[in-house]
Amino acid sequence: MLEPGAVIGLLGGGQLGRMLSVAAARLGFRTHVYEPAANPPAADVCHRVTTAGYDDIAALTAFAGSVDVITYEFENIPTSALDTLERLRPIHPNRRALAISQDRISEKDFLTGLGLGCAPYAAVTSRADLDAALARTGMPAILKTTRLGYDGKGQARITVPADVGPALAAMQGAPSVLEGFVDFSREVSVIAARGADGSVACYDPGENVHEGGILRTTTVPARLNPGQRADAVLIAARILNALDYVGVMGVELFVTPQGLLVNEIAPRVHNSGHWTQASCTVDQFEQHIRAVAGLPLGDGNRYADVVMENLIGDDVLRVPELLNAPNTALHLYGKGAPRPGRKMGHVNRVIRG
Amino acid sequence: MLEPGAVIGLLGGGQLGRMLSVAAARLGFRTHVYEPAANPPAADVCHRVTTAGYDDIAALTAFAGSVDVITYEFENIPTSALDTLERLRPIHPNRRALAISQDRISEKDFLTGLGLGCAPYAAVTSRADLDAALARTGMPAILKTTRLGYDGKGQARITVPADVGPALAAMQGAPSVLEGFVDFSREVSVIAARGADGSVACYDPGENVHEGGILRTTTVPARLNPGQRADAVLIAARILNALDYVGVMGVELFVTPQGLLVNEIAPRVHNSGHWTQASCTVDQFEQHIRAVAGLPLGDGNRYADVVMENLIGDDVLRVPELLNAPNTALHLYGKGAPRPGRKMGHVNRVIRG
Repeated sequence: MLEPGAVIGLLGGGQLGRMLSVAAARLGFRTHVYEPAANPPAADVCHRVTTAGYDDIAALTAFAGSVDVITYEFENIPTSALDTLERLRPIHPNRRALAISQDRISEKDFLTGLGLGCAPYAAVTSRADLDAALARTGMPAILKTTRLGYDGKGQARITVPADVGPALAAMQGAPSVLEGFVDFSREVSVIAARGADGSVACYDPGENVHEGGILRTTTVPARLNPGQRADAVLIAARILNALDYVGVMGVELFVTPQGLLVNEIAPRVHNSGHWTQASCTVDQFEQHIRAVAGLPLGDGNRYADVVMENLIGDDVLRVPELLNAPNTALHLYGKGAPRPGRKMGHVNRVIRG
Repeated sequence: MLEPGAVIGLLGGGQLGRMLSVAAARLGFRTHVYEPAANPPAADVCHRVTTAGYDDIAALTAFAGSVDVITYEFENIPTSALDTLERLRPIHPNRRALAISQDRISEKDFLTGLGLGCAPYAAVTSRADLDAALARTGMPAILKTTRLGYDGKGQARITVPADVGPALAAMQGAPSVLEGFVDFSREVSVIAARGADGSVACYDPGENVHEGGILRTTTVPARLNPGQRADAVLIAARILNALDYVGVMGVELFVTPQGLLVNEIAPRVHNSGHWTQASCTVDQFEQHIRAVAGLPLGDGNRYADVVMENLIGDDVLRVPELLNAPNTALHLYGKGAPRPGRKMGHVNRVIRG
């Protein structure tokens, strides 16, 4: 268990790091943010920032030496950086969770190995692979790079045969995975936490709506029947236990007539868990810090319904109106100019019964 | 209205500055904290810190030049520092509010001038003044320095004639005020906000319990009848309007058989308003930042009952237990070792209906 005043190292200084840093302070910890880009959002609310690349071994070494434990806000941390850091300080969540979530094929192999359902998938490195995979999945299907995809990037949909060539070209030679289309009625996600003591706590599942590959809204409660709700939580707990995971994970699930299928997992706090700020005593950010710091998990019971809406690009022009809206908690990330697709903030609209 | 990314200068880096800084970030602003002591609590969550004294004109000038607006977490800012700062940037709340609240006699003269009730009081600079004042108020009474008192410091109770000499000696020659005892059933406080547009919003009154001159708990709702509740809010609004005030103010009131008497006012966010973090969409810290930044005041409706308890000195030893308590939101201030009387953090216990 970290002592009061201990320093938590955060890899990544975006909005997730920013909200993690505030949560860490609330528990009496300091944060040291490591981020290649200058003036990241987390710099406004952290104790210390290192601006350096993930290939800067001296900076990584100094960073590790200045902190008591290391965590991260994004999963695509270069392996070489992790090698350097891991020799010096504990990293939570662990390397296995990172390795699995960094590679879509490893992730799906892991999930299916646990007996969990996923969309049909096949590795693709060539046109021949792709044709064979499509013969299995049919169309439509989605081709994705196995690594470094987020917010719909590195993805191409294949609806008709003419899409096949351009989709493969869009991968730019990167190893890819073809995923068959799933006939799902909705996507939900479970924000799950596992403490250093092995205890697991899941927030109530939220229902996600995406636009252009980017999360638009999460609504709690999700429209699930009691059996689905229980399944969602059990699936998340199985994943966390199998990984001996410490921290918060976002588990995205498709609701299908055949049951819940796992879409993907993210070994970190998750955009679809921002609603917990407005409706839980302990939100996902504090829950993650508690886990990483070896503290007991906190009370994550949900006490109101919430609609979380991302403010993407020009959505921030609505801020003046949102400032006047009742039951509406605004969170801005301190980013500069709005750009299309850029997450500028979010709002939690609370609906009290 | 401040633009996104604007910098708010905060005088004082204690726990109030710390929580103001987090609120400012949530609205997309940056904070620059000015604080004489090294490593203050606010430094963990602010964009920038200046460590310099209030007599350092060069540092004050540079600070003012780096910010867009100035606010503060404590009222005892030296006048000379304010003179320097005010020439360069707007300060909210304004000088008049500061001047009045820095001097107990000015404060009481101001309040009685508005027709508001206070405890009987008289200025004391000599034994003769004190004897004359005691003849009016009777005993018990409290002698207080007119300036720089907080958390029960600079106060001496006079219960019997033998207390008179020691009480006067305890003032160490400072100008003082004798306050008659008020037969009050309870103390409540109203956290009131006034926006740059003149609109006023008050949080539901909280009921305060002190121990050793330090706030111990605030409970909402306070035990007030509807008439008292309306009076409390009207009194606070009258004070803010009379001062053309911009920001949050804490107004402490005594509940007496003759109605509500004003105990004191604090031109800043207030310890007795910490419960708003757990039970309002917009808490007192964000409300203050909104006002200072020229944004509209936010939704401060209370949606649950709360008991706020300060963690003073060794109370922090209860943190392990508090981390496991349901409905309990913990806030630690990142201070070092606990000392008697030192505010180390607070907890908000939420009671849902």
